[in-house]
Amino acid sequence: MSGGRPTLTAIAREANVAVSTVSKVLNGHTDISPATRRTIERLLTERGYQRPRSARRAGRRTDLIDLVINELDSVWGLSILTGVEEVVEEAGLSLVVSSVHNRQSLTRRWLESLLARGSEGAILVLSELTDQQRADLTRRDLPFVVVDGVSQPPPEIASIGATNFSGGYAATEHLIQLGHRRIGVIGGPEQLQCTRARIAGYRAALETAALPGDRQLVRYSNFQHDGGLHAAQALLALPDRPTAIFAGSDSQATGVYEAVRQAGLTIPGDVSVVGFDDLNFAQWTAPPLTTVRQPLHEMGVAAARTLLRLVNGERLESTRIELATELIVRDSTAPPAG
Amino acid sequence: MSGGRPTLTAIAREANVAVSTVSKVLNGHTDISPATRRTIERLLTERGYQRPRSARRAGRRTDLIDLVINELDSVWGLSILTGVEEVVEEAGLSLVVSSVHNRQSLTRRWLESLLARGSEGAILVLSELTDQQRADLTRRDLPFVVVDGVSQPPPEIASIGATNFSGGYAATEHLIQLGHRRIGVIGGPEQLQCTRARIAGYRAALETAALPGDRQLVRYSNFQHDGGLHAAQALLALPDRPTAIFAGSDSQATGVYEAVRQAGLTIPGDVSVVGFDDLNFAQWTAPPLTTVRQPLHEMGVAAARTLLRLVNGERLESTRIELATELIVRDSTAPPAG
Repeated sequence: MSGGRPTLTAIAREANVAVSTVSKVLNGHTDISPATRRTIERLLTERGYQRPRSARRAGRRTDLIDLVINELDSVWGLSILTGVEEVVEEAGLSLVVSSVHNRQSLTRRWLESLLARGSEGAILVLSELTDQQRADLTRRDLPFVVVDGVSQPPPEIASIGATNFSGGYAATEHLIQLGHRRIGVIGGPEQLQCTRARIAGYRAALETAALPGDRQLVRYSNFQHDGGLHAAQALLALPDRPTAIFAGSDSQATGVYEAVRQAGLTIPGDVSVVGFDDLNFAQWTAPPLTTVRQPLHEMGVAAARTLLRLVNGERLESTRIELATELIVRDSTAPPAG
Repeated sequence: MSGGRPTLTAIAREANVAVSTVSKVLNGHTDISPATRRTIERLLTERGYQRPRSARRAGRRTDLIDLVINELDSVWGLSILTGVEEVVEEAGLSLVVSSVHNRQSLTRRWLESLLARGSEGAILVLSELTDQQRADLTRRDLPFVVVDGVSQPPPEIASIGATNFSGGYAATEHLIQLGHRRIGVIGGPEQLQCTRARIAGYRAALETAALPGDRQLVRYSNFQHDGGLHAAQALLALPDRPTAIFAGSDSQATGVYEAVRQAGLTIPGDVSVVGFDDLNFAQWTAPPLTTVRQPLHEMGVAAARTLLRLVNGERLESTRIELATELIVRDSTAPPAG
């Protein structure tokens, strides 16, 4: 077994099981003891087993495409879903949707489930894809595309993202051009790559305008309303409070709105606010929210198109696609008072 | 053929085609000329063909449940989807999601698609289910449940709804108890049953409190932000403007917020606002919105549970389930000024 790729037979021999048992693990069957499954999974990973492409292609066509999403309960994920659904529907295929609710146990289950039912391929909108999951998917020769998400996957994985740095830059530049000098920023969780890219864009815009940075003006929180509310309360309580706040998401921005209202201030009279995402409700806030549009629907479209190419055995020129963000100016930004 | 249910053979003879052709139509195959398909569909309907239950049950189990939804692009539908997904996932089945985008042609296609792939059953969240569609579904013995939606389906169809009358009553009663006497109401489109039920609840609450009705205070519009905006602009322009507005949806309520802001008024100081639905963003409006909670997630759960019972061949005690609405009081309602 030195050199070359191991065969199923070799794996079975080493695990001391029948070839059919290894095959069952590969195909996501569940009638195998957990211990045996673990042994076989470990051997498949360690020996670098890779299913021959022909094996899967020869199987029945199911015409099912999977979308696996962390949490369905967000407009963010919904926007991606609509894009994916559009392409899948046009291709005459059917879209299976599952949510893993951030639980590892469910993540295990969806993988088995989509292997067992013979999914043609999967689009993954997960906060994190573990090395194990990636190995599991690759080993089965199941085509997949990652929509980020948290961290940019390695170059061998097809992935779709947005230009977060440019978005952070454009939002900050807009506020500077209006005349703001003290601009607060609220990122998402600090370890996320999208947060880092946006904050880097914010800093680059300040530097370009030769404005000083102030660490007190940079906050991190979750992407939700309450995260934005608390971060904005802290920013507005500063002795020299900012005249503008750039939030990391539209949901955070709604929290900023509430903090401004609670402080007896108005938008944009006292504080200008910029969001990120341009979810549908951004145009319905009072006042309508200036925000950085993340083309989520189009990201879903691109992910599905990329996946269909992989399913058809095409080679991608580039495994990474980043779609442009765009500043949408509405009524929540204005020159600073005085 | 007088009396009794017609057989496939009888239908085939009458249409002058092979039995296999009739079978293809029933199973959603597409390799049949449109003219032949129409003839066969017509005969199946006119003769009242009903597929024997055994025929479908004997087929392969696919473990696929379908959710067919008018438009995926709404938080409203998303909330139902999360409930359905939860139950389907727990049952170890997979959920296929399709959107028909209000287009009849696509409505035709989903039906063929889910028949062809052997769906176990379908949950329909459509603005309208035509008699033809209902007949198509029933004829194939494909179990289905309707989540309304526009109009309450006939009693032989399993359906899930919410107590719209009670919701309209509770919202209006709350405003009356705060001291409001001139209460504007914005319904959805006038012909919708849910609109009628909510407006009836509004009127009943006024009557109970012996308050006069005023036709000028009752408006109809679409359920979106712009509908609420325009209706509220008209209400606020009245010589004797209302001190409170009960909107037909949370999206409409965001339009009311914007109209109040544009009029230089405040919420709840000058105008109290109540929404309907309690979508996630309702708690993030500034101020947080008092609204009538429609248990959409739970409606999705109930629809999926009901469907699984039908798939398993169980009989329902009741084909209609209405889940209770609930008034959620937040900060957008207060006693009227002065």
